[in-house]
Amino acid sequence: MSVTAARGFTAAGIAAGIKENGGKDLAVVVNHGPSHAAAGVFTSNRVQAAPVHWSRQVLADGKVRAVVINSGGANACTGPKGIEDTYATAETTAGLLDVDTEDVAICSTGLIGVLLPVGRLLTGLETAMDRLSAAGGEDASRAIMTTDSVPKTSSVTREGWTIGGMAKGAGMLAPGLATMLVVLTTDAALDSDVLDKALRDATRLTFDRVDSDGCMSTNDTVLLLASGASEVTPEYAEFAAAVREVCDDLGQQLIRDAEGASKDIEIEVVGAASEDDAVEVGRSIARNNLLKCAIHGEDPNWGRVLSAIGTTKAAFDPNQLNVAINGVWVCKNGGVGEDRELVDMTDRAVRITVDLSAGTQSAILWTNDLTAAYVHENSEYSS
Amino acid sequence: MSVTAARGFTAAGIAAGIKENGGKDLAVVVNHGPSHAAAGVFTSNRVQAAPVHWSRQVLADGKVRAVVINSGGANACTGPKGIEDTYATAETTAGLLDVDTEDVAICSTGLIGVLLPVGRLLTGLETAMDRLSAAGGEDASRAIMTTDSVPKTSSVTREGWTIGGMAKGAGMLAPGLATMLVVLTTDAALDSDVLDKALRDATRLTFDRVDSDGCMSTNDTVLLLASGASEVTPEYAEFAAAVREVCDDLGQQLIRDAEGASKDIEIEVVGAASEDDAVEVGRSIARNNLLKCAIHGEDPNWGRVLSAIGTTKAAFDPNQLNVAINGVWVCKNGGVGEDRELVDMTDRAVRITVDLSAGTQSAILWTNDLTAAYVHENSEYSS
Repeated sequence: MSVTAARGFTAAGIAAGIKENGGKDLAVVVNHGPSHAAAGVFTSNRVQAAPVHWSRQVLADGKVRAVVINSGGANACTGPKGIEDTYATAETTAGLLDVDTEDVAICSTGLIGVLLPVGRLLTGLETAMDRLSAAGGEDASRAIMTTDSVPKTSSVTREGWTIGGMAKGAGMLAPGLATMLVVLTTDAALDSDVLDKALRDATRLTFDRVDSDGCMSTNDTVLLLASGASEVTPEYAEFAAAVREVCDDLGQQLIRDAEGASKDIEIEVVGAASEDDAVEVGRSIARNNLLKCAIHGEDPNWGRVLSAIGTTKAAFDPNQLNVAINGVWVCKNGGVGEDRELVDMTDRAVRITVDLSAGTQSAILWTNDLTAAYVHENSEYSS
Repeated sequence: MSVTAARGFTAAGIAAGIKENGGKDLAVVVNHGPSHAAAGVFTSNRVQAAPVHWSRQVLADGKVRAVVINSGGANACTGPKGIEDTYATAETTAGLLDVDTEDVAICSTGLIGVLLPVGRLLTGLETAMDRLSAAGGEDASRAIMTTDSVPKTSSVTREGWTIGGMAKGAGMLAPGLATMLVVLTTDAALDSDVLDKALRDATRLTFDRVDSDGCMSTNDTVLLLASGASEVTPEYAEFAAAVREVCDDLGQQLIRDAEGASKDIEIEVVGAASEDDAVEVGRSIARNNLLKCAIHGEDPNWGRVLSAIGTTKAAFDPNQLNVAINGVWVCKNGGVGEDRELVDMTDRAVRITVDLSAGTQSAILWTNDLTAAYVHENSEYSS
């Protein structure tokens, strides 16, 4: 069910003393092969953490032997010392596993602008290596949590091969990857080019369309590692669909655990002239604070949907916009539609459908409501 | 001090029964000339309310005799009936004042997607006309309030001439005009081209740089009416500076009254390669929910500033970014700077300075913190 669901992988998750609360904060995932093909996608934020700089380099040759992830500190905006600490982490891991340093990817998550307690981290690595096991995925998924309230794992199994994965992320969830760390593993036998294509195809439609709070992280990383241990090479379409399924499941888990959220909002934009238009409109709605407050208050305030659509460059005629909330078309032809009193918003799941009446393309995005709990969580301590 | 500070203008503000709470909800401002030159700027939202469509047409010939503003309903997304109601308002006003219908500008503010009680509005116009007076500016400024907690007025007087104004706006405050209605009046003798240039120059640097919650309204309108009653024609530079001063003052009042806000945040971006870059960076920071929560919690979380900067296309090197919060350079060269414990955030006013180290251009934007009170105000009832 987790990052060790596929054959050829072991993992561990331990408390290394990086988090002040003593919780698990260091995860290691090791690919025991025979193949070490890998692909990765990273945050499009131009301010990037040291581990992102490092892991981009590691992924350049499409090969990863191990991934080390720490919570308790993002190691972002930490200058040359931050790079040094990331390198030391990779080097120590490589020594312990007897692999090349350049095949060790690093991810960090936590507060920006604070140096990691690197001594404790390096000591922790030794402990983590002792605990590596094919049952270690669950511990690993706990060790990468920050403000997450639950660990997030997923897996799918097809004929002879499996994809497993874990994710973390609850705030600073936005596009160009929702803010998150994700490690996916598979025992399928595929080269890194195929992994890269499947991963990009999947993230484009899943993690890239999760926009919880419009804030983009400095540390986003999604990795896909293939051990080849199944000795099965699936068809591309089948493999890509499975990767997307796992990404979709993990993305939904991220939204459901978003900081302070009380409503999960699915925004479906149809009738768009292009998919880009549909995504732009969906994202504009997902980021509208006033609408997100209204949804929190179970108020089907479609005027706020229209005012959000109106800020985009998408093709549409304002007099041909239609909006449904939970299936009730409260806005027709840009004006008042069905009675808003008919909208039942008591469920946690809310579905907003926008018909731009401008074409045949569509997209789905996910967000959540804006609540006082989000404000509390993000104002009461640094994160 | 108000919209009737300049000679040649009368105003009134009455309760016409549009607002359910019985408060003042209908304002009229009349220009008695001798000149009726006018200029206007409107929301850049592509979904525009009926009164915006109408008033754009009215302003086309640079002439306005009267402005009617109602609160209690935005008359946006109201279809043909909405247009009809706006036209009826202009027509009735024109009849009562014996002016051309096409010289009556209309503004509306309130909930989107609800038809106005136009009968009550038209009846109210008669009452309002009876109450028009040179002392009516104060009442008018109260009649345009929605979630505003205080009326907002301003004026400046130069040698022989005056500019006065009023504004409303507390939520849905964002760019391409902060969400607001503003009426400015002057007794200076200037033609509409000069008014237009002065108004655009001023709004670009004031209202356009107020970004309270990133949400853009369907009804934004800023009007400048000149009566020429002073018979003084000031130099352009002097007049433009005075218009900007009034707009700046009203813009600051909008920010100070923003829904739920406990901190007024000034964001100064310096060292930019272009003014556009500075504005893009400032706006990105102003819209970062996580940062706005941190400021609410008096947490000088500069990492969230950097992650916001990183989402822009502005020219900068991440390793040369500097950030000061209330004068303490907590981030230097993209990394840890002065001790964040030195930052005193107890005052309501917070100043964030970003040095992009990429040029000599700069810009200042204003926003406020994100609070539980904002969520409550925008989730507990439709607005």
